[in-house]
Parts: sequence; C-alpha cells; structure tokens
Amino acid sequence: MQTLKVDVGHAIYPILIGPGLLGHRELFNSTLRAADVLIVTNTTVARLYLEKLQATLSGRRVADCVLPDGEQYKTLQTLGRVFDALVDAKLNRDAMVLALGGGVVGDIAGFAAACYQRGVAYVQIPTTLLAQVDSSVGGKTGVNHPGGKNLIGAFYQPRAVIADTDTLATLPDRELHAGLAEVIKYGCIWDPLLFDWLELNIAKLTGRDDEALAYAIERSCAIKAAVVAEDERESNLRAILNFGHTFGHAIEAATHYDTYLHGEAVGLGMLIATNLSHRLGLIDGGTQERVRDLLARAGLPMEPPRIGTARALALMQMDKKVLAGTVRLVLLEKLGRAVVTGHYAQSALDATLNEYFA
Amino acid sequence: MQTLKVDVGHAIYPILIGPGLLGHRELFNSTLRAADVLIVTNTTVARLYLEKLQATLSGRRVADCVLPDGEQYKTLQTLGRVFDALVDAKLNRDAMVLALGGGVVGDIAGFAAACYQRGVAYVQIPTTLLAQVDSSVGGKTGVNHPGGKNLIGAFYQPRAVIADTDTLATLPDRELHAGLAEVIKYGCIWDPLLFDWLELNIAKLTGRDDEALAYAIERSCAIKAAVVAEDERESNLRAILNFGHTFGHAIEAATHYDTYLHGEAVGLGMLIATNLSHRLGLIDGGTQERVRDLLARAGLPMEPPRIGTARALALMQMDKKVLAGTVRLVLLEKLGRAVVTGHYAQSALDATLNEYFA
Repeated sequence: MQTLKVDVGHAIYPILIGPGLLGHRELFNSTLRAADVLIVTNTTVARLYLEKLQATLSGRRVADCVLPDGEQYKTLQTLGRVFDALVDAKLNRDAMVLALGGGVVGDIAGFAAACYQRGVAYVQIPTTLLAQVDSSVGGKTGVNHPGGKNLIGAFYQPRAVIADTDTLATLPDRELHAGLAEVIKYGCIWDPLLFDWLELNIAKLTGRDDEALAYAIERSCAIKAAVVAEDERESNLRAILNFGHTFGHAIEAATHYDTYLHGEAVGLGMLIATNLSHRLGLIDGGTQERVRDLLARAGLPMEPPRIGTARALALMQMDKKVLAGTVRLVLLEKLGRAVVTGHYAQSALDATLNEYFA
Repeated sequence: MQTLKVDVGHAIYPILIGPGLLGHRELFNSTLRAADVLIVTNTTVARLYLEKLQATLSGRRVADCVLPDGEQYKTLQTLGRVFDALVDAKLNRDAMVLALGGGVVGDIAGFAAACYQRGVAYVQIPTTLLAQVDSSVGGKTGVNHPGGKNLIGAFYQPRAVIADTDTLATLPDRELHAGLAEVIKYGCIWDPLLFDWLELNIAKLTGRDDEALAYAIERSCAIKAAVVAEDERESNLRAILNFGHTFGHAIEAATHYDTYLHGEAVGLGMLIATNLSHRLGLIDGGTQERVRDLLARAGLPMEPPRIGTARALALMQMDKKVLAGTVRLVLLEKLGRAVVTGHYAQSALDATLNEYFA
C-alpha cells in the first residue's frame, strides 16, 4: 500500500493506494472512527462491491443509498435522495458518508456531506481509474445544472481517500481509457517525465498491468495533491487542472452528458486545446502530434461531435472559468507546462473551433 | 449609522445599522464592488423595497429572483429556483448575491451563494427585526428538510450586513414581536443588563420607538458577533444561541412551519427551557417569572400547541444538536448565563414536556 498526504492547510488527509483495501478491516478501523455511516454508491458498483464493504464495516450501523448510474443523474434532484437517506437513517453530525464509486458518486456524496447538518465527515472510496487519479482527490464536490457542469457545489475535503486498485479489474475498457485521459493530462501540464513514461508504457496500461496502473495512479495523485495544496480554491494554479475541460464541458453539455464519459470528453478537449496551443505558436507541430498520438493509443475517441462553432462557444462561455465575458483557457507552453490565460487571438480560437465543431 | 465588525478569523465583515441605508448609494458603492448582482427577495418585500434597491444599484447589471413568502418555502426546491436565476442571468464567480428580506430569504440566498460555482460573494440586507438581530449575522445558511429544520446548509459568511432600520416601519406587529423574542434571548443567555433594559423598555420596542429599536438591534448584533467570533462552527459556545430553539424547532416541525413564525416558536421554546431550568433547580421561580413576563409583554404567544409529549421528543431528537441519541439542551444557570448540556434528569424533561405538550 502506498500512502500520500494532501495538505491544504486547514485539513490534511491521506490517500491510500493498493490492492485489497476494500476488505482491509484494520485500515478502515484506523481511518473511520464514526459508529454510524451512510454508503453512497450506484447500481453498478453496488452489485460488485457493496456487500464487501458492508462486511468490512460490520459492527457499525451502516445504511446505504444506491443511486442510478450515469453523469445525467448528477443533479440537484439526486442530491435530494442522498439527503433523504441521511435523514431516514437519523444520522447526526458525528456520522460519516462513504462515497463508493466513480466521479459522479464521489461528487454527489461529497457535496451531500458538505451540506448535511452544515457538514459531516466523508471518505472517498474511488472504484474507477478516473476517480482514483482525479476526482476523489482535492475536495471539489457538486452537481450539474442544465446550464452547465458542476455549477452547484462546494470545496469540501474528505477525511481520507481509499483507492483499492483491485476494483479496476471490473472496470469496462471504455472507462479505463477515459481514466487514462486524466493521467495523460498530468503529463501534459506538469510532468514531462510522466509523459515520456506514458509513451513507453501506454500499452501496459490499456492491458491492465497492475504495476503500471499502480505507478500511474500514485504519480497522478501526487501531482494533484501538490497542485491542490498550493491552491485549494482555484484562485490561480489549480485552474491548470482544467486543461481540456472547458472544451470538454461544452461537448458534454451539447450531448446531454449521455454520449461521452467525462474522461472521453476531456481527452477530446485536450486534443482541441493542444491544437489551439499550436495555432497560437506556443508549441510546435511535433508536440501536438505526440499528445494526439498518446490519446489515440490510450483508446480515446479522436473525433469531437459536430455541435457547431457558435454552440460550442456559447457553452464554453457558461463554463465557470469565464470571467466577465472572456473565456479563460488552459493552454500548453510545452510538454509539462500549462498556462491559464484570457489573452489570445480570438481568430485562432475561432479557427480551432471551426476545425473541430463546424 | 452604527458600524460593528464580525471577525471569524478567515473572514471579517461589517454590520451597518441605521435609517435610510437602502437608498444610500455611496454606502453600496463602497461595500459592493461587483458589476453583476442578483437580488433574492420574496413577493412581500419585493413590493415594498425592490425598486428602491434597484435604483440605488443603477449602473450595474441587476437581476432579481422573487421567491414565495413563508418558512414553508425554505426548501431544496426553492433553492433550485435561485440557482436557475443565477444561471439564467449568466452570472460568473465575480458576481454577488444580495439577500433582501427576512431570515428565510437570507438563509436561502446565502446558501445559494455558498454553492453557486462553489461560492460567490453575498450581502445580507435584512428587512425584519428577527433577521436584523439574528439570522443575517454569523453565516449560518441553509434550507429545511421534511425531517427537520436547517438540516441542509453551509457555514458561509456574508461580505457585509446592511440593516436599514426604516424597513421595520412596514413590519407587521406579529413579526416585530417575533424578532423581540431573539432580543430577549440575548438578555437571557449573555447580558443581564440588556435583560434589565428590556424590562424597562419593552413597551417602547413594541411601540416602535426608533431609538429603542436601534439600541436593541445594535446590542443584539454585538453579542451575536462576539459569540460567532469565538466559535463560528458551533463546536461549543455558539450552541448557547440555540436557547429555546430545540423546543421551538419541534413546535415548528409539528405544525408544518405554517402556524408559528420562527421567533414565536423560539419564544415558546424559551418559555419551556426556562421552565426546565427551574425544574432542575438551576434558576429560582422569580427568574422564571421574569422571563415569562417579558415574553408576554413582548406580545408573544404563551401557549405551545398540544402536539403530544412523544411527538415533541421525537422531533427534538431529529434536531441537529442531538449527539448519539442524547438531546443536548441549552438551559439557564441565571439571567445572562446559559449552559449547553446533555446531562439532566430525563424525568424533569418528561415533566416539562408533559406540562406544555400533553
């Protein structure tokens, strides 16, 4: 088991990564002191892992709340179901919420924990690669609004992240590939050596080599922890983690969150952001090709949906990173270094949007 | 104009109290820097003060969200309407929410501001006595759940509280009296001199004497600011502000939030908590009489609804202050000093509940 620390000043918590953690009773006993817990999960994950987690927690009062599976259920209404479950189980301020599942479950459960009784403790137990390398770390919680993704939420840090790498065995290929998009992102924006390593090892990752996956998860969490430690509330640095996300969110919103997995949309968004970075002269054509090539080898979709240039721009403008009308974008300056900027030639953005969305 | 400061460590903000503030353009210009604002209010207050506030804010982009009036609308569903208004107005992270109204408007609007884009700034503009002396100060925001009051919310401090005492002129007597309940509370739990002053001046307050009201508001805000500064998140001291509230919440829940104003329920709750304090030998009969007498002279209801002892206890147990099954109560040790405790004779609580609810 690997242990990393996230330190955001007012809160410090561990990220525990390794095989067999879901059944590791001592680990849960030392991490969770609450006698009363609510497990929030979804129908798919419940079938696979709910009983196992319940067995590990035996001796406590354990309630559960099983949500429908899918990003289209990441709504205020679904959040209400978690509140109902918390109230039905008569849970008090000293209870704890466990988020067992992927990013959607983690975001909803974490936000419910942030709001219930104005804040109860929660632990992230991510079961997808995307959640293990990204969404479970850093305390961003929330739900979508028809007007845009994650428009409603809270910064609320978990007490621990417990990533059992065994759960990746049941992950469909498509979700594995979607998770790799976020790993590739860390290489692009922060760590050129990780990018090099990914180019050499991408086939091992898509082939589910345990050791390679464990390294990718640990390295990704370490980078995310470093960024979040410096800027929990995304005043500046943290925004680089949104590389590919502004374009990706537009794609998800235009397709009603039911066509692409989040990681797939982010992969497409990175493709577009890299194209724009090249068009603006920030990176050369070879670098653009390397990013493109790695995304393709990770099994990610390479053709954004033709949602129309104007619609894409309008959806990007509703994105949270828009300040006073200017769309701020995360662009690459070179492999391993990103910049967040609202200063770029609008004509270049138009040309890139035309290339991918017209 | 009187100015007080609330300092909770990570945030410091002013409470501005005085006549004519709603029309005070310079005050708003120096307090609110946002170019885009959403005014959240209700149908009753909108009729009286929305145009006036809009005129004071002219030159900015001002949207509004007018909610139905009443505690029964303090729900997740109404909160959703505020999110819709924020999205419809395309407001970004640098926008500001203004809560123009009483406690319900302030709680919903503040919670919406806490969650929208994971947090935008907001200002409380309380127009009821209760909101001016209590709910607008201290950063408790939230909505009710069918299972209990304020079960869903956030601690989220406003950027400023602007209390225009002129708005009390249009306040119905019943609401004025409800606000006085919270003023009396501060005397009971914190300030025996305020209690003495209230005994001498209660007729001036019910008679809407400007000077007396201004003094009561200022003194109440100063006490609340002092308590909140010491314990923002109600780890211990702040719980004394809930004097009368555990009983009061049970009364409100049992009557579906549509029979008593919050302050009226709190007044009844203080009556009951004072009775229990006397029954437990903490205060003498004379003190109990003084509290009872002052509440009566403030025009507050003196007969709790006969909701049944068992139902009252069950509703109290759902209250947030219940820890692991024990109902913690705020009791008086003497006028001006309260104690929060879960250690008391259950038989005394039963006898008091029987006296008021059976």
